[in-house]
Amino acid sequence: MLVERNRILTETIQRLMRRGAEARLTKIVSKVHAADLPSVFSSLSASNQRKLFQLIRDPEKKGFVISELDEDVALNIIEDLSIAGLAEMIENMPSDDGVAFLRMLPQHKADAVLGMMEKTESEEVEGLLRYKDDTAGSIMIPDFIALQENMPAKSVIESLQSKEYLDVEMPFYVYVVDEYERLVGVSSLRQLVVVPPSTPLREFMVRDVISVTTDMDQEEVARIVARYNFLAVPVVDEEAKMVGVVTVDDIIDVIREEATEDILKMAGVGEEFVETKSIVRSTRIRLPWLFASFLGGIVAIFIIGYFEESLKQVSYLALFIPVIMGMGGNIGIQSSTIVVRGIATGRINVRHLWSVVSKELAIGIILGIFYGVLLGCLVRLQYSMDALAISVAIGVLSSMTVAALVGSFMPMIFARMHIDPAVATGPFVTSSIDILSVLIYFQVATILLGI
Amino acid sequence: MLVERNRILTETIQRLMRRGAEARLTKIVSKVHAADLPSVFSSLSASNQRKLFQLIRDPEKKGFVISELDEDVALNIIEDLSIAGLAEMIENMPSDDGVAFLRMLPQHKADAVLGMMEKTESEEVEGLLRYKDDTAGSIMIPDFIALQENMPAKSVIESLQSKEYLDVEMPFYVYVVDEYERLVGVSSLRQLVVVPPSTPLREFMVRDVISVTTDMDQEEVARIVARYNFLAVPVVDEEAKMVGVVTVDDIIDVIREEATEDILKMAGVGEEFVETKSIVRSTRIRLPWLFASFLGGIVAIFIIGYFEESLKQVSYLALFIPVIMGMGGNIGIQSSTIVVRGIATGRINVRHLWSVVSKELAIGIILGIFYGVLLGCLVRLQYSMDALAISVAIGVLSSMTVAALVGSFMPMIFARMHIDPAVATGPFVTSSIDILSVLIYFQVATILLGI
Repeated sequence: MLVERNRILTETIQRLMRRGAEARLTKIVSKVHAADLPSVFSSLSASNQRKLFQLIRDPEKKGFVISELDEDVALNIIEDLSIAGLAEMIENMPSDDGVAFLRMLPQHKADAVLGMMEKTESEEVEGLLRYKDDTAGSIMIPDFIALQENMPAKSVIESLQSKEYLDVEMPFYVYVVDEYERLVGVSSLRQLVVVPPSTPLREFMVRDVISVTTDMDQEEVARIVARYNFLAVPVVDEEAKMVGVVTVDDIIDVIREEATEDILKMAGVGEEFVETKSIVRSTRIRLPWLFASFLGGIVAIFIIGYFEESLKQVSYLALFIPVIMGMGGNIGIQSSTIVVRGIATGRINVRHLWSVVSKELAIGIILGIFYGVLLGCLVRLQYSMDALAISVAIGVLSSMTVAALVGSFMPMIFARMHIDPAVATGPFVTSSIDILSVLIYFQVATILLGI
Repeated sequence: MLVERNRILTETIQRLMRRGAEARLTKIVSKVHAADLPSVFSSLSASNQRKLFQLIRDPEKKGFVISELDEDVALNIIEDLSIAGLAEMIENMPSDDGVAFLRMLPQHKADAVLGMMEKTESEEVEGLLRYKDDTAGSIMIPDFIALQENMPAKSVIESLQSKEYLDVEMPFYVYVVDEYERLVGVSSLRQLVVVPPSTPLREFMVRDVISVTTDMDQEEVARIVARYNFLAVPVVDEEAKMVGVVTVDDIIDVIREEATEDILKMAGVGEEFVETKSIVRSTRIRLPWLFASFLGGIVAIFIIGYFEESLKQVSYLALFIPVIMGMGGNIGIQSSTIVVRGIATGRINVRHLWSVVSKELAIGIILGIFYGVLLGCLVRLQYSMDALAISVAIGVLSSMTVAALVGSFMPMIFARMHIDPAVATGPFVTSSIDILSVLIYFQVATILLGI
């Protein structure tokens, strides 16, 4: 449905842009749901992106669109905008998006924009800018409803309708704080309307409130929201004072981003999603990762070079390098993927090192025996050389066993050392497997073939 | 925080189980948040899992825990339970979870359980069982609030407090339907309390409601909820009649599951998350996937075998097989990962085939030239053979170029043919790259070295 909706909207807008039908474009842009616009922008040329953006009249819509665009598209569009225009736009964004947007700008420009903003708005944003990227503090919204515990349900409902709270973006819960603004309870809107109107919050609030701290990693916050099915989770500072809420819509973005990051890191494509149109940038991101694989290849050259005499005598040996490397490489990726994703989703406990590794090892041995024997039989049939067949079989078995071992062990160890395990897969694991496979295979063959 | 919380709870429970302190266990289990229990279960032995579950008294808690457990743990636990016990448990689950649970049971057992359930409950569950797995119908909840458009805000609020709607799990929105139960509008709870009490729904409801159909794939539903920041999305049947809602907490589960599935499929570990403790099952899942890689290896044997004479004359040639295969394999994984994830997140449009593939191709060529020249120079220095150095350089260049091409082209084509592109990566892409790399390398070398 979305794909179809995107296609129709994009095609209509492209057609109107070609015709220069500005009046109609302005009308369409004002009628369409803001969330439908970002994907249209990424299909337009850079100059059309700027032109279309100028036609958005509503500053809130502008802010929403900018905050949802890929960084390179956003940076392209804002080149045209004045400092005053940027300031107005950020004032109309939820403050967490405003912060993310300001972080994208060069320092001097960000400072200039902050200087132009209304004081209350810029103070709020500057307050959030203090928190490190990817922490609860950086994705929280500082607007929430916090009331005292003796307030009766009826007055709470009246407060909700007051001007003070009209700005609160997603008021799912009413938080209850004590005189020091420390969080002591929570009530859902639902509970408010089902209790008798005179009941004070104290009597129906939930006291065991789960909260997160401003410096907690956003991935951990996401896990908490997902586990307890929260719509929002309160954020407290080091003095247990409530300072904001993280809402479920931002958590969805975090979960998608983190999954994408993990996938890309495993493939050694860095943390950046390379749907930037820049080939140079993509190349620069991938180059160093491939270097690990290159170094592995160089080591393999020396290993095989060391066995050159054997190779001269039995040139058949070279034929089996690809299959031995391939089988090891593939099962290694399987093991490391299972482990990396298991750790990320919390299904694998990092402390269970040996049970995880020994399971993978067992699978590696079983599959290694299966494919080793299979290949050994084929080689025996084709070349009628027992020693060669056995060498090749052992080569596959040892390569697959080592691969399962390395592929599961490395991410577990990395995770224990608090290094992101997703980085441990990809070129790094593959290279070690390549080197070990080739080494064991040639060593075994040299011994068995008596060369 | 969660990890620490899990650890303490798990250790406490394990200690008490060793001591057989049932009374204390029962108390802890009743006090702890239901969402904290599933991860404890997966750390216990099978018999302790069953014992601990018996100690949960609250049927709602039982249902919640069972629905969050891994399938093998859940199946182990329910072996002990009577049909009546199962029926009571499902009655206390949200109906979408009840459906998922029933799908796990063997047909005859599921039928028996349905027979024991209260009629209204079993009808609701049976209604949902009709929908195919992984569709909006299978994850929706049939409880929602739907009112007529002439009802004033005040009466709407009173209805919310009425007995009829007390069951509704997450009443974020009030839906407005016409006389044929067709969806015509929506209002948030928020809007209800800020308009004057006598305003009828018609005057403040949003008319442009985005809804999904019962047969829509859950991944598409997730994209819609994520794009529009919904807390729930209404589900309509083929006659546009509203039949349920999908809530954001289920969407979070869908997003996490789909990301995991994609990652595992790319590595050729099937759709199942193999944190089952069964080595046999894991082996069976991986075996066929490795067969693609095995076949690729066999083909490589014949290719290299075909060039055996060259290899006998210049045994050096074998030294460079690993580096050429490795560089191709790794850049191939990078390209396919970028494309597969790009398609999954909607950042890559499947119709832009050539722009995506040509970008990857350009990156492959640039990186291929870089690493080809680098390796060529090293080989020239070490072996003083120009033709060998050039052959190796061309080998790396062509392998990386082909890999980037195949790695991006295949998932795009699969996606266009409506085959899951995640399946196209892993062993399948790697094998084709291995074969092509070896073939081109030996062909070029044979010509250049004049053998």
